[in-house]
Amino acid sequence: MTSTPPDVVRCAYAELVVTDLAASREFYVGVLGLVVTHEDDEAIHLRALEEYLHHSLVLRRGDVPALAVLGYRVRSPREVDVAESHFRGLGARVERRAAGATRGIGPAVRVEDPLGFPVEFFYEAEHVERLTQRYDLHGAGALARLDHFNVTTPDVPAARAYYEGLGFRVSEDIRDDEGTVYAAWMFRKSTVHDIALTGGDGPRLHHIAFASAERAQILHICDHLGALRRPDMIERGPGRHGVSNAFYLYLRDPDGHRIELYTHDYYTGDPDNPVISWNVHDNQRRDWWGNAVVPSWYAEASAVLDLDGRPRPVVERTEDREADVTIGADGFSRTRTDTEFKLGEQV
Amino acid sequence: MTSTPPDVVRCAYAELVVTDLAASREFYVGVLGLVVTHEDDEAIHLRALEEYLHHSLVLRRGDVPALAVLGYRVRSPREVDVAESHFRGLGARVERRAAGATRGIGPAVRVEDPLGFPVEFFYEAEHVERLTQRYDLHGAGALARLDHFNVTTPDVPAARAYYEGLGFRVSEDIRDDEGTVYAAWMFRKSTVHDIALTGGDGPRLHHIAFASAERAQILHICDHLGALRRPDMIERGPGRHGVSNAFYLYLRDPDGHRIELYTHDYYTGDPDNPVISWNVHDNQRRDWWGNAVVPSWYAEASAVLDLDGRPRPVVERTEDREADVTIGADGFSRTRTDTEFKLGEQV
Amino acid sequence: MTSTPPDVVRCAYAELVVTDLAASREFYVGVLGLVVTHEDDEAIHLRALEEYLHHSLVLRRGDVPALAVLGYRVRSPREVDVAESHFRGLGARVERRAAGATRGIGPAVRVEDPLGFPVEFFYEAEHVERLTQRYDLHGAGALARLDHFNVTTPDVPAARAYYEGLGFRVSEDIRDDEGTVYAAWMFRKSTVHDIALTGGDGPRLHHIAFASAERAQILHICDHLGALRRPDMIERGPGRHGVSNAFYLYLRDPDGHRIELYTHDYYTGDPDNPVISWNVHDNQRRDWWGNAVVPSWYAEASAVLDLDGRPRPVVERTEDREADVTIGADGFSRTRTDTEFKLGEQV
Amino acid sequence: MTSTPPDVVRCAYAELVVTDLAASREFYVGVLGLVVTHEDDEAIHLRALEEYLHHSLVLRRGDVPALAVLGYRVRSPREVDVAESHFRGLGARVERRAAGATRGIGPAVRVEDPLGFPVEFFYEAEHVERLTQRYDLHGAGALARLDHFNVTTPDVPAARAYYEGLGFRVSEDIRDDEGTVYAAWMFRKSTVHDIALTGGDGPRLHHIAFASAERAQILHICDHLGALRRPDMIERGPGRHGVSNAFYLYLRDPDGHRIELYTHDYYTGDPDNPVISWNVHDNQRRDWWGNAVVPSWYAEASAVLDLDGRPRPVVERTEDREADVTIGADGFSRTRTDTEFKLGEQV
Repeated sequence: MTSTPPDVVRCAYAELVVTDLAASREFYVGVLGLVVTHEDDEAIHLRALEEYLHHSLVLRRGDVPALAVLGYRVRSPREVDVAESHFRGLGARVERRAAGATRGIGPAVRVEDPLGFPVEFFYEAEHVERLTQRYDLHGAGALARLDHFNVTTPDVPAARAYYEGLGFRVSEDIRDDEGTVYAAWMFRKSTVHDIALTGGDGPRLHHIAFASAERAQILHICDHLGALRRPDMIERGPGRHGVSNAFYLYLRDPDGHRIELYTHDYYTGDPDNPVISWNVHDNQRRDWWGNAVVPSWYAEASAVLDLDGRPRPVVERTEDREADVTIGADGFSRTRTDTEFKLGEQV
Repeated sequence: MTSTPPDVVRCAYAELVVTDLAASREFYVGVLGLVVTHEDDEAIHLRALEEYLHHSLVLRRGDVPALAVLGYRVRSPREVDVAESHFRGLGARVERRAAGATRGIGPAVRVEDPLGFPVEFFYEAEHVERLTQRYDLHGAGALARLDHFNVTTPDVPAARAYYEGLGFRVSEDIRDDEGTVYAAWMFRKSTVHDIALTGGDGPRLHHIAFASAERAQILHICDHLGALRRPDMIERGPGRHGVSNAFYLYLRDPDGHRIELYTHDYYTGDPDNPVISWNVHDNQRRDWWGNAVVPSWYAEASAVLDLDGRPRPVVERTEDREADVTIGADGFSRTRTDTEFKLGEQV
Repeated sequence: MTSTPPDVVRCAYAELVVTDLAASREFYVGVLGLVVTHEDDEAIHLRALEEYLHHSLVLRRGDVPALAVLGYRVRSPREVDVAESHFRGLGARVERRAAGATRGIGPAVRVEDPLGFPVEFFYEAEHVERLTQRYDLHGAGALARLDHFNVTTPDVPAARAYYEGLGFRVSEDIRDDEGTVYAAWMFRKSTVHDIALTGGDGPRLHHIAFASAERAQILHICDHLGALRRPDMIERGPGRHGVSNAFYLYLRDPDGHRIELYTHDYYTGDPDNPVISWNVHDNQRRDWWGNAVVPSWYAEASAVLDLDGRPRPVVERTEDREADVTIGADGFSRTRTDTEFKLGEQV
Repeated sequence: MTSTPPDVVRCAYAELVVTDLAASREFYVGVLGLVVTHEDDEAIHLRALEEYLHHSLVLRRGDVPALAVLGYRVRSPREVDVAESHFRGLGARVERRAAGATRGIGPAVRVEDPLGFPVEFFYEAEHVERLTQRYDLHGAGALARLDHFNVTTPDVPAARAYYEGLGFRVSEDIRDDEGTVYAAWMFRKSTVHDIALTGGDGPRLHHIAFASAERAQILHICDHLGALRRPDMIERGPGRHGVSNAFYLYLRDPDGHRIELYTHDYYTGDPDNPVISWNVHDNQRRDWWGNAVVPSWYAEASAVLDLDGRPRPVVERTEDREADVTIGADGFSRTRTDTEFKLGEQV
């Protein structure tokens, strides 16, 4: 497409449908320490401690767990109109949203993007207190800000091309020598990603991630879940990613939505930031310490809704699946041969 | 003295007189995160998160801030009787205390020790829940256990001899080449100290210290006090001690009682643990990073009570004072010459 | 000015004149752990562990310690030409630099900027190995990347206006109620600053700063200097800044150049990032924990050279000086009254 | 037995037979950062950074990897004689060792203990520099001291009775409701253990453990092994133990000897330290976060030598094995039911 895309600043908020607001609140507020900007019987609007926009996560009560929308912030009010034109040009379903249609959010455009995801573009949002230095409110597991979305989509190169058309750049990817691409990480803000594209049946939401200042906050959340006798909410980790270099932990919320806690990635803001490609057979790509990826992490993801709130049908991935090519007969992806792998290489 | 001393396990609790229980609670519970075992209008009994005895700190309401007692735990009920004999043999004032005379504490002996301090020896104490793994209750500034007492006394060698008579050993001290001793650190449990003897007008309480698992907890308490707009409660630090190698922070409670937060000292439990002597002119002895000791830290300390609850008269130190020999005309102890100092030396 | 400024990506490198390359190497490589990209008898080119451009710091041998140049990276080769036009339009002295005039740097423009600083704009630079995951090379005090410059200049509002003309935005500043501005923090990349403007006699270089991943690296460097018996190289800190929220430490290199180590600031990349103004009388503005700023930190700074390598004359600040209005008769800026200060306020 | 046991201070050193000294050196010195006190073609003597005795680990070149001896330090020279009498009374094979028979170690007694292990008791040892504050020598993965041994033995209650006869106390154990004991942790110094008894075919050495000051050192060693492309040396973890509360990591050295890195356990020095019993079906007992124990951790251990240097025959455990009763058909011990487990309970 030659139409001008909107100038996207960053991933900004997600709205998840949850089946039990009280149970979700216990997890997101009680364990993760997110701050309630507003709550009522229908929804809870949450933010992390360094965020000054109204929310970065909305939990909305519903019958079936799902992703309701992924929100990107654009650089100015005018860019909302640019987004509308761009997606109409792409032939996507597009809806204008009046200010306040989502609490705290100004005029917006929602689309069903070419990958099948419900996506919103907005600029205006209500400002609230930034709690960066309100250390009296910081728990031992304090989270600073929303970091990224990760979505499951069948055709990663196609998804990458779509996001490049939106002005995103690739920081890292996972490939094999035959040319199959298993995943790609893409960004607008100067971090490793605003969105990761994970090859698999889709459209589905793989996870959303919040960043902390240090690793200690993430380790505390593990300890906290242990104390609550809910270690089953820890799906994978903690560990160090090969891709992104981030220290990570994956949790599953009461509805099974996956939340990543994340810190220590790196600056990507220079125009020539080197792209790193990992070989799918390199068992350090997803865990630098070689710990196995649990099967559920590859297989499970959240349904996504269309703009009418109906679950989107899922299209199967037809290319090789990462789990199949990397997990051996013993259930582990750990490479036990002495084969020398190349490190993720700067291109 | 040739009488047998009681077998002391460790420093166990302190009782402080405070003038405003609510203000003290805000500091000790709200900021330091100590756990309330019991509270009423007269007193608050507190413990740190890894402690299973009833309390390690009692705050008792009174008109004048003071130290009411320093409590040592002995190894068995019989050792309480040994303590009684030992101190009667020393000619000290001695009182038996019935079980419960202090809430949560069993039969005890209280003495006015030869240094002028009110000291209690007990074995039995009520067991309460050890919260080591109750991470749901751990704040970002979680404290693990009482670590040591530090008292101000005019004659350090005399005080050292008295404590050696109680079975304590020296881990480190501060001296000069003329033979003056400025401070000594002495222990029963396998840490650098249960009691530090600081040369100065005394008897006075210099501080009590609580240990955390890592430095992050101590740094959080600084941040927390900043958020409360009470940085004036931070008297000195954070820093790394030369003596003890511990990472430290000194706070002043609402009555001016000094509390140290402390972590990273070392194991001293072997019989030949090397004694380290520091030269008083070595400006890394009290702060490994050479940061100046603030004058109040040298000058101020809490009054102590006799067994009738009356303030003890203070005897002036007649030997050189550490502050005088180390603080220069510019108000800093930092050595700006290129003189080579010897490191604290293992004897 | 109405001329188009170059599109600056970020602060990129500084060149310091040092009098003893071996002594400087011991500090920058031996203690700070910076990586040598190239060195010879005249200069050492250094980078931090996450950097892939040839260098972020050049140490060049000379007779008098000084700042030789501050380098900014622009977004494309064409922006180097834009920089040339822009500064010619400003009437500044401008020089083209051929590729390699500075080792590892492509075609560049150097100017004497209106504030009196030697500043270079470049795009092309030699790529070298990014050592982010070469943990075998990371010491306990590992530094990730250059974070910012801080310069001393007499007239902060004028300097701010100049940098706004270069497309920088303000994140925070320090003011008083009478309208005097004492300092301002300005950025291009999405951190609190690429350049801080500190009111004082200038042009002088106050410091350059490197960022680490966590606070532990900074604390280790304190411990390391203690072990070397060089605590006098620690000028101020460690502490938590009020402004920027960063955890900090100020060191002085063997020539007295000031180096800050820095971590934990916050994301500023949204267009409406709130500006925070601090009152100069708020004693938490420069240290969140209320620790005093040492006088040398206010008074001392490095000389800067003109494009011929001659020291620039220094112009005195005529407005009130921060040190004078905040440090009391006792030598401390700590506010001991109960006056309520307003927190740094979001505008 | 009614004979008096020696007064054991703590676990003090282990000697391992390794097949390639250079490869072992790369692991123990290059990765773990242990300090070489002495080395020659036959052996390397190593210590951790806070240790002042000659060594806490000896690597001796040999044909078959094995444990050569576990060394305990006793409280005085006389206690070495007490040890001799005690073990002769037990009918154990006993040998006197002259001073220097092991480099750096004074007169000693070696025994084949009733569990089949080669064990040495000594008091005198050469003092060397304690490097606690030699931060210039501390890497990012600095280890402070030897913490404990862990041995595999078929009959845990019998082994416990034997060690109680040596004056050790139990801190924690793992049991089931039918009375089978799977493991016990026993101590002399005031930590959770000097020796852990793990039920299984024995005598074999399960692992030896070194303590670090904080978790960051342990995480760095993971990162370091990742950078060396040797993540296969990480067998299990990092994680938080239920038992002991310690943060842990298990590595395998080039010969397969298992090394644990360990921090954050708790003080056990009071006479009434509560014993904690864990149910073998509680999936948080070995990992507080519920992460699965890898099968090799249960199955594999090092051979041990008799006093003539010959491998000891291994006796099979006849009681239930922990791996069998806790690992399900899916290869994970994670409990996915909602069954409420009791926490490790204080007795």
